[in-house]
Amino acid sequence: MSARFISLEGGEGAGKSTVLEQLREQLAAAGVDVLHTREPGGTAVGEAVRAILLDPAYRGLCAEAELLLMFAARAQHVREVIQPALAAGRWVLSDRYTDASYAYQGGGRGQPAERIAGLEGWATGGLRPDLTLLLDLPVAQGLARAAARGGAADRIEQEQAEFFERVRAAYRARAAAEPQRFRLIDASRPLPEVLVQVGAVLDEFLAAAGVRAP
Amino acid sequence: MSARFISLEGGEGAGKSTVLEQLREQLAAAGVDVLHTREPGGTAVGEAVRAILLDPAYRGLCAEAELLLMFAARAQHVREVIQPALAAGRWVLSDRYTDASYAYQGGGRGQPAERIAGLEGWATGGLRPDLTLLLDLPVAQGLARAAARGGAADRIEQEQAEFFERVRAAYRARAAAEPQRFRLIDASRPLPEVLVQVGAVLDEFLAAAGVRAP
Ligand SMILES: Nc1ncnc2c1ncn2[C@@H]1O[C@H](COP(=O)(O)OP(=O)(O)OP(=O)(O)O)[C@@H](O)[C@H]1O
Ligand SMILES: Nc1ncnc2c1ncn2[C@@H]1O[C@H](COP(=O)(O)OP(=O)(O)OP(=O)(O)O)[C@@H](O)[C@H]1O
Ligand SMILES: [Mg+2]
Ligand SMILES: [Mg+2]
Repeated sequence: MSARFISLEGGEGAGKSTVLEQLREQLAAAGVDVLHTREPGGTAVGEAVRAILLDPAYRGLCAEAELLLMFAARAQHVREVIQPALAAGRWVLSDRYTDASYAYQGGGRGQPAERIAGLEGWATGGLRPDLTLLLDLPVAQGLARAAARGGAADRIEQEQAEFFERVRAAYRARAAAEPQRFRLIDASRPLPEVLVQVGAVLDEFLAAAGVRAP
Repeated sequence: MSARFISLEGGEGAGKSTVLEQLREQLAAAGVDVLHTREPGGTAVGEAVRAILLDPAYRGLCAEAELLLMFAARAQHVREVIQPALAAGRWVLSDRYTDASYAYQGGGRGQPAERIAGLEGWATGGLRPDLTLLLDLPVAQGLARAAARGGAADRIEQEQAEFFERVRAAYRARAAAEPQRFRLIDASRPLPEVLVQVGAVLDEFLAAAGVRAP
């Protein structure tokens, strides 16, 4: 059974990091060797780029530079971390990946989808996830969760609600366009219910991948 | 008379920064309001990206990420600094610009020219210099000058001689392909001679632009 690449997507406070923890445990329990990582970041240079991207001091960052920085971090992430792990037979779980650029830099900032697709073609070497869980919930609810978690808002979190509405719409459009790869999770439900939905999706995926339930 | 954009290109230690000083003075003496800047950098976020690009700690940086980081800094540079200055009637002198990506990331790292041209099309909004001075000299001579100047070698300066030979060849090929925009300066000559060559090129350009010699 070859290694699989799973990404988690969704807006601010959707529950990606929380869900990722359960997925790790569930995969480990099934005997799968799994690496978890995140974007932007995942490598030393990618984390340095992430720090720039999220720093509120750079609020004048233009949309083109934001898109290029995201793909710079991603190009390194794919070559240094994701591809080598998959080649070594490890599964990879990533907290965000390329769909986030279509949602944030595309939907949110208005960068054309063809521009993003052009970058995707060579910057990631065309690497796409085998499965993408989209945690979907109303924008206000996600922002409230993120705010309740505390901490200062980063440069992207400082955007207006309409920005996040465009992000959500772009994510949902991608999920609708690629139903085979995406699983839409109703992340507005209480956490235990969300985890049940996610667990079922992963069980089904593991079965299809030929991994026996423990 | 509309404002002009002039770039200075060449390998390590070619004399770009030295020549830029004279160009500034010569333009100021001709009554031209001039802004000087550099790449990678030229903006706050661009200087942060420059620090990443030159940091020897990131020696594993892949060629794709390097190219994307260069254009991220450039996209911001064009929109925040170069275009507004030109729009306000100021001339712009830049120590390196897009030709450096064709030379370093293209010639040096082997990134395809069409990939770079694709980025150039949207990341810079197609902005090209009106005049580019290419300071050309044998690689060993440039490296010796840069070394004599002292300081630790940055990530790019740590490359092998063959890398810089490819950079030089790519620069020369670009100059040959666009003779109207480029002026090739023999930077192997003693500095006073180089400055005479550069002064003559600028005088001719000023005359063509309708600026009276002082
Ligand atoms: N279904 C849920 N119901 C209620 N609270 C939740 C739910 N899922 C996550 N939370 C809580 O919401 C907050 C945000 O969750 P989490 O950090 O997992 O989201 P995230 O998608 O990773 O956010 P970010 O985009 O900011 O990284 C956390 O405090 C988490 O405990
Ligand atoms: N024509 C020349 N002959 C001899 N020395 C020169 C000449 N031009 C510049 N130099 C000296 O060589 C060194 C490198 O010059 P300079 O810093 O201007 O190059 P540069 O192209 O800006 O280099 P870098 O690519 O590292 O920024 C400096 O010490 C400078 O004084
Ligand atoms: Mg998170
Ligand atoms: Mg210099």
